[in-house]
Amino acid sequence: MTLEAIVGVDHVLTTPAALAAYACDGLTSHRVQPQAVVLPATTDEVAAVVRWCRATGTPWVARGAGTGLSGGALPVAEGVVIGLARMRAIVSIDTANERITVQSGVTNLDVTRAVAADGLYYPPDPSSQQVCTIGGNVAENSGGAHCLKHGFTTHHVVAATFVTATGEVARLGSAVADPPGLDLLAVVIGSEGTLGIVTEVTLRLTRAPERVETLLAAFPSTDAAGEAVAAIIGAGVVPAAIEMMDRLTIEAAEAAVHAGYPTCEALLLIEIDGGADDVAATTRLVTDSVLAAGASETRTASTAEERARMWRGRKAAFAAMGRVSPDYYVQDGVIPRTRLAAVLRGIRALETSSGLRIGNVFHAGDGNLHPLVLYDRAVAGEAERASDVAAAILDLCLDAGGSITGEHGVGHDKACAMARMFTGADLTVMDRVRGAFDPTGLANPGKLLPTPRLCGEVPGFYRAHPTELAGLAERL
Amino acid sequence: MTLEAIVGVDHVLTTPAALAAYACDGLTSHRVQPQAVVLPATTDEVAAVVRWCRATGTPWVARGAGTGLSGGALPVAEGVVIGLARMRAIVSIDTANERITVQSGVTNLDVTRAVAADGLYYPPDPSSQQVCTIGGNVAENSGGAHCLKHGFTTHHVVAATFVTATGEVARLGSAVADPPGLDLLAVVIGSEGTLGIVTEVTLRLTRAPERVETLLAAFPSTDAAGEAVAAIIGAGVVPAAIEMMDRLTIEAAEAAVHAGYPTCEALLLIEIDGGADDVAATTRLVTDSVLAAGASETRTASTAEERARMWRGRKAAFAAMGRVSPDYYVQDGVIPRTRLAAVLRGIRALETSSGLRIGNVFHAGDGNLHPLVLYDRAVAGEAERASDVAAAILDLCLDAGGSITGEHGVGHDKACAMARMFTGADLTVMDRVRGAFDPTGLANPGKLLPTPRLCGEVPGFYRAHPTELAGLAERL
Repeated sequence: MTLEAIVGVDHVLTTPAALAAYACDGLTSHRVQPQAVVLPATTDEVAAVVRWCRATGTPWVARGAGTGLSGGALPVAEGVVIGLARMRAIVSIDTANERITVQSGVTNLDVTRAVAADGLYYPPDPSSQQVCTIGGNVAENSGGAHCLKHGFTTHHVVAATFVTATGEVARLGSAVADPPGLDLLAVVIGSEGTLGIVTEVTLRLTRAPERVETLLAAFPSTDAAGEAVAAIIGAGVVPAAIEMMDRLTIEAAEAAVHAGYPTCEALLLIEIDGGADDVAATTRLVTDSVLAAGASETRTASTAEERARMWRGRKAAFAAMGRVSPDYYVQDGVIPRTRLAAVLRGIRALETSSGLRIGNVFHAGDGNLHPLVLYDRAVAGEAERASDVAAAILDLCLDAGGSITGEHGVGHDKACAMARMFTGADLTVMDRVRGAFDPTGLANPGKLLPTPRLCGEVPGFYRAHPTELAGLAERL
Repeated sequence: MTLEAIVGVDHVLTTPAALAAYACDGLTSHRVQPQAVVLPATTDEVAAVVRWCRATGTPWVARGAGTGLSGGALPVAEGVVIGLARMRAIVSIDTANERITVQSGVTNLDVTRAVAADGLYYPPDPSSQQVCTIGGNVAENSGGAHCLKHGFTTHHVVAATFVTATGEVARLGSAVADPPGLDLLAVVIGSEGTLGIVTEVTLRLTRAPERVETLLAAFPSTDAAGEAVAAIIGAGVVPAAIEMMDRLTIEAAEAAVHAGYPTCEALLLIEIDGGADDVAATTRLVTDSVLAAGASETRTASTAEERARMWRGRKAAFAAMGRVSPDYYVQDGVIPRTRLAAVLRGIRALETSSGLRIGNVFHAGDGNLHPLVLYDRAVAGEAERASDVAAAILDLCLDAGGSITGEHGVGHDKACAMARMFTGADLTVMDRVRGAFDPTGLANPGKLLPTPRLCGEVPGFYRAHPTELAGLAERL
């Protein structure tokens, strides 16, 4: 049996142009060309491809739309990429139970489009939601601006069809609440393609709110904006979203999409959803909180058009940085939200000491920072300096009791950093669980967990993973 | 090193009276006396006890308050019970971030008591919440009446200190959202003591609602009550709780605690919480829905006293069955809530065909049934007939697309039934994950997964678990 016999000759790509197109994901600074790209159309074809890889000892990397920012879909040179792009069927919709079942290649936004007429939507909303796939969202446990109130991907997936790394097809989870046994679905969500391939998912949908109100508040400092966030949450209010942008990102976004933002040092975008009466009362309370924290100006958007304009600048912020700087690195760290002001001051100090500009645009309510470190790779030493600054920002997050990644994942980019957050014993258990799903060690090797070759030895981390035993590690 | 040297001579129990007290949990029909009961006071002592068990090849069973209903804490005859009752410290409270850290032996209700003055509470509320421990809640992923809106234990645990089955201490999860790496915390929650012992947990707290309204609705049939549930959820309303009781349980509860319930075939207790305006509007909408579905009467409770009285009958329902029947078996199954009326009709048919009375009192909003099968063990054949009826009820649940347990867990009671819900491949992966945490197979053996001796061979389920290899299985 050949790969062509499994998926059809048109769906095995081996030309240099095709392989180049799959050589990286959103972490474009790292590129590896695989041996082939395989595009199965059904769960059975995915399982047959995985069994072929096992029989031939070929490492494989699953890929959705390739919008990930941590190199989770970076190919392995000796391996194949298994692309899920052809699996884009809406399998079934159950509006009475507020469930939808879709194949993994369906885009995030198409899920909401499929049920919007029934008054339902799918809350997790990564910035890439127009193109990123549900399968990729599951692999990375994706978040988004509205996860503050509504939760991450893991809170919305109730069941999945899953091809194990041994090529078997399993059903994980259940359409009903709280299924028995070990929660294998939870460990698969966010496992970044290291345990197997989710080919179909059943998602919990949410009733569209009666009313949505969006509030923009301008502040004279990031400190004041950070205090406003703490005051809102401290008042017992959980808005659907609280986003923060600093002066550099506001100016870049303005230049790019003319969102009409005020000139200020920091702004908050706060969205409140729910029943009409409660939204009105909460909006008043939030307005009082931001004014008490020193906001110089507030604006509200109540219509869909006004709201879309207010969000346009936020959603364009990453891309807008391309107008300001030839290169930038997006860091992704998490801190307790009570530490926002202090950590932002620390980042400002790094900006001064490094001479590199740093923009901040992020999910303030979750404490999920996205500092953008600007550099020019044409200037000798700047790329290295940017990398050092990004690492120092992670140190600030860890020192504040935070985490090395909020929603972009570990992937290739942060596999070595895992040892800064977890002990050797923690990593050993993770690796044993990985081995329980993937005894062959062929599923996305080199991602998620540190490898001795790239990261050095981690004290107490004993990899019993067959990846090492088979000598594959040296090749990665 | 002896167990006495680790925990102190007063905290190793070996007298027949002490061992008899630990011979069963809430599933009192199964009893096994262990060799000893060990009561450690710290995480380090728990780890040392587990290492002692490993060094001596002694199986062990962790135990909280022993209120579980599936025999999850049933001892092993050759083993020890590790009781967490002495670990009842509130470690820290962080009201600004709405987090509390407690040791595993703290009771569920004591968590809420510790933060009530700050306007916070811990939502999951098993009926046993006055005595059951947080550690036991984590082991079983406990639910409760208010999990419909607020989620199960797994939705409220953000981090844990965890003693692995190899006796190492690990930190799982993170105080901040969405930590990286494999979600080991999620797989530990609900693993029923088969992976290790959680000694300390950090819980997400919830802001107490501005207003709570409780509605009681009486119906002429369980069909009409089931339709009301579907109508409420279908209208996009998610009450905090929707509980159903049928005639038999209403009468038993009335006789026991005089809650003042109306005489009817079925009643719903519906609790609505949130902002004051929204609660008022939602209560009107729910009242309209239940009247349209055929409710003969509705009552509301707005004060804490009225509400306590309304809940008293529901909370006493299980115990009240003791007045009606010498013995009863509590079944625990889940169905999609749109199938409520049909499955209740099926249970009614089983009552007729078996000649055994069956009471129903359950979490209707979640579709989590708790049929109580009444029998008298003094009457020859009745216990067996009750067991057959309970099994037939599970068949009804599985045929409706449901699950073998909602919140009581698999434990000893339903280990064999796992093969009716999962394939051999599913069970193999679960068992491999179990082995990743517990390579020695000494953690709560014989629970959660089927064993060949008790359940027969499950096609495709290959246990690579060392429990079998060491020949321990024959003794269990």
